[in-house]
Amino acid sequence: MPLKIEIIGIGNELITGRVLDQNAGYAAARLHSFGFEVSRIILIGDQPKIIRSALKQAERRADAILVTGGLGGTLDDITVEVVSRVFHRPLILHEGLQGQIRRSLSRRAIPWNPIFEKIAWLPKGVELFHPRPKACGFLMNEKGKPFFFLPGVPAEMKRYVDRQIIPYLLQHYTGQEVIRQRIYNIFGLLEPEINEKLKDLEKQFESIQLGFYPNFPENRLTVSVRSEKARWADRLLDSIEKVVVERLSGYIISTNEQTLEEVIGELLRQKRRSLSVAESCTGGLIGHRITSVPGSSEYFDRGVTVYSNRAKTELLDIPKRVLSYYGAVSEKTAVLMAERIRTQSGSDLGLAVTGIAGPGGGTPEKPVGTVWIALSSFQGNKAGHFLFRGSRNQIKILTAHTALNWVRSYLLNDSFLFSN
Amino acid sequence: MPLKIEIIGIGNELITGRVLDQNAGYAAARLHSFGFEVSRIILIGDQPKIIRSALKQAERRADAILVTGGLGGTLDDITVEVVSRVFHRPLILHEGLQGQIRRSLSRRAIPWNPIFEKIAWLPKGVELFHPRPKACGFLMNEKGKPFFFLPGVPAEMKRYVDRQIIPYLLQHYTGQEVIRQRIYNIFGLLEPEINEKLKDLEKQFESIQLGFYPNFPENRLTVSVRSEKARWADRLLDSIEKVVVERLSGYIISTNEQTLEEVIGELLRQKRRSLSVAESCTGGLIGHRITSVPGSSEYFDRGVTVYSNRAKTELLDIPKRVLSYYGAVSEKTAVLMAERIRTQSGSDLGLAVTGIAGPGGGTPEKPVGTVWIALSSFQGNKAGHFLFRGSRNQIKILTAHTALNWVRSYLLNDSFLFSN
Repeated sequence: MPLKIEIIGIGNELITGRVLDQNAGYAAARLHSFGFEVSRIILIGDQPKIIRSALKQAERRADAILVTGGLGGTLDDITVEVVSRVFHRPLILHEGLQGQIRRSLSRRAIPWNPIFEKIAWLPKGVELFHPRPKACGFLMNEKGKPFFFLPGVPAEMKRYVDRQIIPYLLQHYTGQEVIRQRIYNIFGLLEPEINEKLKDLEKQFESIQLGFYPNFPENRLTVSVRSEKARWADRLLDSIEKVVVERLSGYIISTNEQTLEEVIGELLRQKRRSLSVAESCTGGLIGHRITSVPGSSEYFDRGVTVYSNRAKTELLDIPKRVLSYYGAVSEKTAVLMAERIRTQSGSDLGLAVTGIAGPGGGTPEKPVGTVWIALSSFQGNKAGHFLFRGSRNQIKILTAHTALNWVRSYLLNDSFLFSN
Repeated sequence: MPLKIEIIGIGNELITGRVLDQNAGYAAARLHSFGFEVSRIILIGDQPKIIRSALKQAERRADAILVTGGLGGTLDDITVEVVSRVFHRPLILHEGLQGQIRRSLSRRAIPWNPIFEKIAWLPKGVELFHPRPKACGFLMNEKGKPFFFLPGVPAEMKRYVDRQIIPYLLQHYTGQEVIRQRIYNIFGLLEPEINEKLKDLEKQFESIQLGFYPNFPENRLTVSVRSEKARWADRLLDSIEKVVVERLSGYIISTNEQTLEEVIGELLRQKRRSLSVAESCTGGLIGHRITSVPGSSEYFDRGVTVYSNRAKTELLDIPKRVLSYYGAVSEKTAVLMAERIRTQSGSDLGLAVTGIAGPGGGTPEKPVGTVWIALSSFQGNKAGHFLFRGSRNQIKILTAHTALNWVRSYLLNDSFLFSN
C-alpha cells in the first residue's frame, strides 16, 4: 500500500473563491509523480473548530499530513494556536528563530513589529525547516505520523515541498509500492470510444488503472500502474504503451503532456521547416496558438486573417471570380489561400482555413460549421471538408485544432497520405 | 446563521495534480457572493470508500452539499453507484433521459454505445436538471438536505451553478429576504485597490456585500444587496452603482458580464466604424478575440500577424531602415503598423501591437514584457509603451487586453484623450 497523504489548505480566501488554490494541486502533482498517494485535499477557512476537526480526522485517516496556510503573523493566522491545543503541545518561544527573524529584518531594513514575534512561537517539539522571516515551515511528528506545516504563499510553499518534504518522504518511506503514470492527449475520439478500445487492459492487469479527463477539444487518457518496484512499473507501462499506441494510432497528439502546438513546433524545428497561415473563420486563433510556444519565431513567419472578401483578394490575390463562383467557403478558395500564403511568405508550409463559425451565415448547402482546411507544400496541396458542431467558439477551436493536426500528420508522414 | 455548504470534487485527476480544480473555486465564489457560506472544499479520487465517507460526513455537517465529477459514462465514473449504495436508493433507468440521449446522439450522428445507457441510470427519487447527453446534473433531497450532483466539465458545471443551484438556494433558503447582485468587470486595478476604493460602502450599509473573483486579466467585482423587497434592493443597487462607476471610472469594462470584445463590437456597430489589426507578439490573439463575437464580420475586415521583420516589410511596408534603426519593438514601428493596416484595409481604425513576449529575446534596454501599442484613426495616431510581467501567455493576454481596451476608450471618447 502506498503512503496515504492528506493535504489541508487553510485560509478564508480559499473557501470564498477569492483565490484559486494552487498549492494543493502543486503538492499533489509532485507527490504523485514520486509514487505517493494523495487521498484527500481539504480546503477550509480560518475557523478554529473546523481546523481542529480537519486535523483530527487527517491524523486518524492518513499516514502523513501536509498543512498549508495560517502561519503568518496576523490575527487571522491561527494554525499554530489550534495545533497547540489539539495536540496538547504548549507554544514555546523559539529563540534561535526569533534571532534569525530580527537579523533578517534589520538586514532588509524592515522595522521590528510584534507580529514577527508571534511567528517565533511554535508548538513544543516541532522541528523547523529553514526559517524565513515571514512564515516558517515546520515538521511535527505526532505518534509517528509526520505533519508538515507550510506557509500558504505559493512560491514559498513550493520550495518547501521540493526541498524538504519530498526528500523527507523518500528517505523515510521508500520500499512502499510506487505508482507510475503516463498521459496521452487524444484528439478525434470520444471518451467512450477510447474506453471501448482499451477497457480489456484494466481487466487483464489488476494493477492498471485508466483515467479520462475531457480537455476540449482533446481527451486526456491516463494509464497508472502500481508496483513494488519503479523498474517493474516502467516496464509494464512500456508494454501497455505499445498496445495503446497501436490501438489509438493517429489519434494520440502527445504522450508527454505536450500541447499540439508544442508537438508541431518540435517537428518543424527537427525537420527545419517553416510555416505560415491564412485564416478566415478562426480569426487569428491558429496563429495565436502557434506563437504560444517560446521560440516559435524560428519557424513561424506570418499569418493573415482575411475576414472580408476584399481582404482575401488584396492580401492573398484570390480572384474575385473564384470568390463569387465557388464562394469564400470552398475547396478552391482554401487551396488558393494555402498556396498563396506559402509562396508569398517563402515558408515551406502554408496552412489555410475558411468556414462558417455561426451562429449566423449558414445556408442549406453550407450550414454553420462547414469548414474547408487546406495545406500546401512543395509536394502539392491537400484539402478537406468538415462539418463541426458546437458554439461559435467551439467551431473555431475545432477548426484550429484539426488544421494544426494536419500539420502534425504531414510532418510525421512527410507526405499528404494521412487520413483527415 | 448562513447556510453551510460543502463542496466535494470527485476525480483522480484532482488528487494527482494533473488538473488544477477550478470548479470548487468557481462555485465557492458564486455562492459566497450570494451570501452563502462554503465551510469545506474536499477533493477526492474515484475511490468508492473515500467517496462514501466524504458523502456521509458532509451529510452530517452541512446544510447543503454540492458534488462535482464522476457522472460520465466510463468505468471510472462511479459517483452515481456510490450514492445509490450510501443512501439506499436503487438505480432506476430514467427513460425520458435515455430517449433524449438517443435523440441527441442521432442528431449529431454519433453511433449508440452502451456507455451512454449508463448515464440514464440514476438513484431513485432524484430530480434531473436540464438533461444533457454527456453527463447530467441532478438534485437529491436526503432527509431535507439538498445534494446537488454536477458534471465535472467546467463549462457545464458553471452553467449548472449559475442557472440551477443559486436560483434553487435563493428560492429555498432566503426566507423573506431577496438578494440582488450586480457584476462589474474591471481591468487595470488590483483587488486591494478596488477594495480600498469601495470598502466604506460595506461599512455604510449592512446589507451590502462586496465580492471579488479574479478572472485574468480582469477582476470581477460583485455587489450584493439583501432586502425584504426586490424593488428596494434594486433601488439601493442603482445608487451604489453611481458611486462604483464614479470611483472606478475608466476601469470598468462592463456592468453586465459582457466581454471586452463584445463591448467593442457594440460600440463599433453603434458608431458604424470598422477595425483592422496588425499584430506581432500577440500572434493573432487580438483578431481571434474580436472574431469571437457573432457578426464581427460587419466591422472587422482583416488582421495581419507580421511575426518576422520580412513580413513587416512585405505586408505593411515598414521600411527596413526603420526596423534596423528603431527596432521591431519601437514606437515608430508600432505607429507605422497601425497606420498602414488602417489605410491598406480602408478601415476606420487600425490597431497594432509589437513586443517581446519572452521568455527569450529580452535585452537590458528592452526586457521581456516590453510592448508598444498603437491606434490609428482619421484623427491621427496614439502610441503607448508598456512593461508587462508574467509568463509568455500572460504577456500576450495583457497586451491583447490593453490594446482592445484602447479601442474601447477611443470609441467612448471619440478622441485619443484617454489615459493609457
